[in-house]
Amino acid sequence: MTEMLSAAALAQAIRAGRLSPADVTALCLEAIAAREPEIKAFAAFDPEALTRAAQAEGLAQTPLAGLPVGIKDILDTVDFPTERASPLFAGYRPPADAAVVRMVARAGGLIAGKTVTTEFAFMQPSPTRNPRRLSHTPGGSSSGSAAAVAAGMLPLAIGTQTGGSVIRPASFCGVTGYKPSFKLLPVLGLKPFAWSLDTIGLFGAHVADVAFAMAAITGRDFDLDAEPVLPRFAVAPTPRAGLASADAHAALEEAVRAVRQAGASVEAVEFSPALEAGDAASAAMQAYEASLAMADEWDRHRDQLSPLLQGYLSEAQNTTPEQYDAARRAARKARNAQADLFAGFDALLTFAAPGEAPEGFATTGSPAFNRLWTLTGAPCVNVTGLTGATGLPIGIQVVGRFGRDRATLSAARFLERAIAAG
Amino acid sequence: MTEMLSAAALAQAIRAGRLSPADVTALCLEAIAAREPEIKAFAAFDPEALTRAAQAEGLAQTPLAGLPVGIKDILDTVDFPTERASPLFAGYRPPADAAVVRMVARAGGLIAGKTVTTEFAFMQPSPTRNPRRLSHTPGGSSSGSAAAVAAGMLPLAIGTQTGGSVIRPASFCGVTGYKPSFKLLPVLGLKPFAWSLDTIGLFGAHVADVAFAMAAITGRDFDLDAEPVLPRFAVAPTPRAGLASADAHAALEEAVRAVRQAGASVEAVEFSPALEAGDAASAAMQAYEASLAMADEWDRHRDQLSPLLQGYLSEAQNTTPEQYDAARRAARKARNAQADLFAGFDALLTFAAPGEAPEGFATTGSPAFNRLWTLTGAPCVNVTGLTGATGLPIGIQVVGRFGRDRATLSAARFLERAIAAG
Repeated sequence: MTEMLSAAALAQAIRAGRLSPADVTALCLEAIAAREPEIKAFAAFDPEALTRAAQAEGLAQTPLAGLPVGIKDILDTVDFPTERASPLFAGYRPPADAAVVRMVARAGGLIAGKTVTTEFAFMQPSPTRNPRRLSHTPGGSSSGSAAAVAAGMLPLAIGTQTGGSVIRPASFCGVTGYKPSFKLLPVLGLKPFAWSLDTIGLFGAHVADVAFAMAAITGRDFDLDAEPVLPRFAVAPTPRAGLASADAHAALEEAVRAVRQAGASVEAVEFSPALEAGDAASAAMQAYEASLAMADEWDRHRDQLSPLLQGYLSEAQNTTPEQYDAARRAARKARNAQADLFAGFDALLTFAAPGEAPEGFATTGSPAFNRLWTLTGAPCVNVTGLTGATGLPIGIQVVGRFGRDRATLSAARFLERAIAAG
Repeated sequence: MTEMLSAAALAQAIRAGRLSPADVTALCLEAIAAREPEIKAFAAFDPEALTRAAQAEGLAQTPLAGLPVGIKDILDTVDFPTERASPLFAGYRPPADAAVVRMVARAGGLIAGKTVTTEFAFMQPSPTRNPRRLSHTPGGSSSGSAAAVAAGMLPLAIGTQTGGSVIRPASFCGVTGYKPSFKLLPVLGLKPFAWSLDTIGLFGAHVADVAFAMAAITGRDFDLDAEPVLPRFAVAPTPRAGLASADAHAALEEAVRAVRQAGASVEAVEFSPALEAGDAASAAMQAYEASLAMADEWDRHRDQLSPLLQGYLSEAQNTTPEQYDAARRAARKARNAQADLFAGFDALLTFAAPGEAPEGFATTGSPAFNRLWTLTGAPCVNVTGLTGATGLPIGIQVVGRFGRDRATLSAARFLERAIAAG
């Protein structure tokens, strides 16, 4: 198993002069040469261009210190094809970078290549393998971003989540995944699937790494030490807890035990019906918006979509404006209910996925524990360190208050350290 | 002066068999041949393709009955170049239609061509002339959409508004402009300028025409007769009333007199400081978002932007995340203040623009009376029928409650009829 690359530690080493950006790129290229043939995390990659870019003057002094960053192939890039895992976009070159790609570049990150997405970031499995066990799915739809970081091929990667496409692959691959509060990172240049849900997220080795990257990319303060030392946690048996495997339940109990052991409080809470109703609302909202977001592909080229996506969009056309409006009202109520629920604590501990990564590649796994938080727009972090019955990773999802991303990441780091302290 | 074409009346005539879609297209082509050389409303146009499309089977039975619809050249179209009035996009062919373009096509509208936008829908004047007096600006940024409808070249056109780009050109050109509640029409495939503000709108001859088009495009109920007969109006001397000319004040007084004469109540209200603060917030919000929405053009091709846009974006880069967050908080407070203000009435009467269209083409006019409502997301309608000191149109802006678009259009129709009744 290759070690994961810590973005924060590498940037610190570069700034201290112990490593150069070119050294870091060389490290990545080495890992890529060793592991990419079996993992297939990249949709487009140019080692020569990356090596050249790493030589640029002044990189070490930039916020991202010249670290290579992978970009999910659902985001537009000028310097790489943007294929969206669809034959409809084979070789497509967009006229402009996605906004977040420009933010990464402006912060001194190197656009390392495109990471594999599922077709239009929906559910059709991709060719990517799980670096923790090659016979298992890495999850989706940000398959390549999670796998590239898990395999130590990149220190950072950008993904997107409309249902559970950041947190689920992070859990399956044993990496830190961070879905920021809705709209904290701009989605311009992302091929939309459902504009009320589509959210850009980050993958890194540890919580400190995604916090470091978020600060560098946005210019915002993500100093986790500025938050209170002891977060107030809650844990909830969601109405969907029955979907989680025994080892996922065991992992969640272990997480609760660990943070208590580390001195934090954990309160058991229940979801109000209004909050839980957001889960069903997300399905109607996604269907209505996808039928418009994919309208051109559906109207002109539906035979070139996967049967899975064709079936989904065929159903989605039947969603009426009235059903959509009802879903939007339910979503607003769920957001309010979430604000009420979070009044008494800082972060909720819950399942990141139903269990270990499923074996095989028939499915990318279930977003059942992620959809609600995508709908409410709450910040979510997948925290690593625990494993399931067969030794594959099982992540813990830390959900925070809307707009309180720094506190959420701080609570996630607290959990991460508590788990490591075991 | 060519007569404007009423979309609702034409669709009715087609359904009754008195006209065919081909007849309507022929009417449009005749007006275009006569007036387009001097007005320059079109960025791309293909009369043969339009004539062929009008022959399709079954068009008469569709919601839009085969009416030709102009699309502002800031929206992506597969069948026409999408140049955004920038040399950077000369000849550009996007891979998919904008969602609203697909909605128009699915409703049986014919995509008649691209109408002139200002450069990236910002403030640099376009070549389009005001059909009411060729020596005057048509306003911006939806210059071509407003002018094409005003000149009777098209019954319907799609525009967009980030500051005042639907209501202002509608006022200057003497057409009905309708900016729906924020997000009621999806913006996918619109080149973003400020994603919290960018709103798609419609141009038609009369209020009934934009209501008809909105119902056809969205599948929603816009039956204006389902609303109460007598709307409750308010009128407000905004803190910016000093920017309005004497004839704009006279027109607003005339509007108040007309609806009172028609039996409606008009209450004088004042804007709370929280509501009015939204006007300043929109500037900071637009600057921050534009610096990211235009990041690729700025980073790679800034010398190909107009000096006006270069100057704006150069300033915009200085907006900090903290200033942006403060603007977003002010925006939320302004939306709440608006909801409070509107508790007692259905629609507010206010200025659509500072006065008649300015002479010449040095400027597209001021969005001073539009920005606040773009920020709050309230539905707005420009109502025609009044004129200024030199005989050019002066529109009255009807502002409604967020999400109450049908009631807003109904109030606008009431005003329109009251003005016509004199």
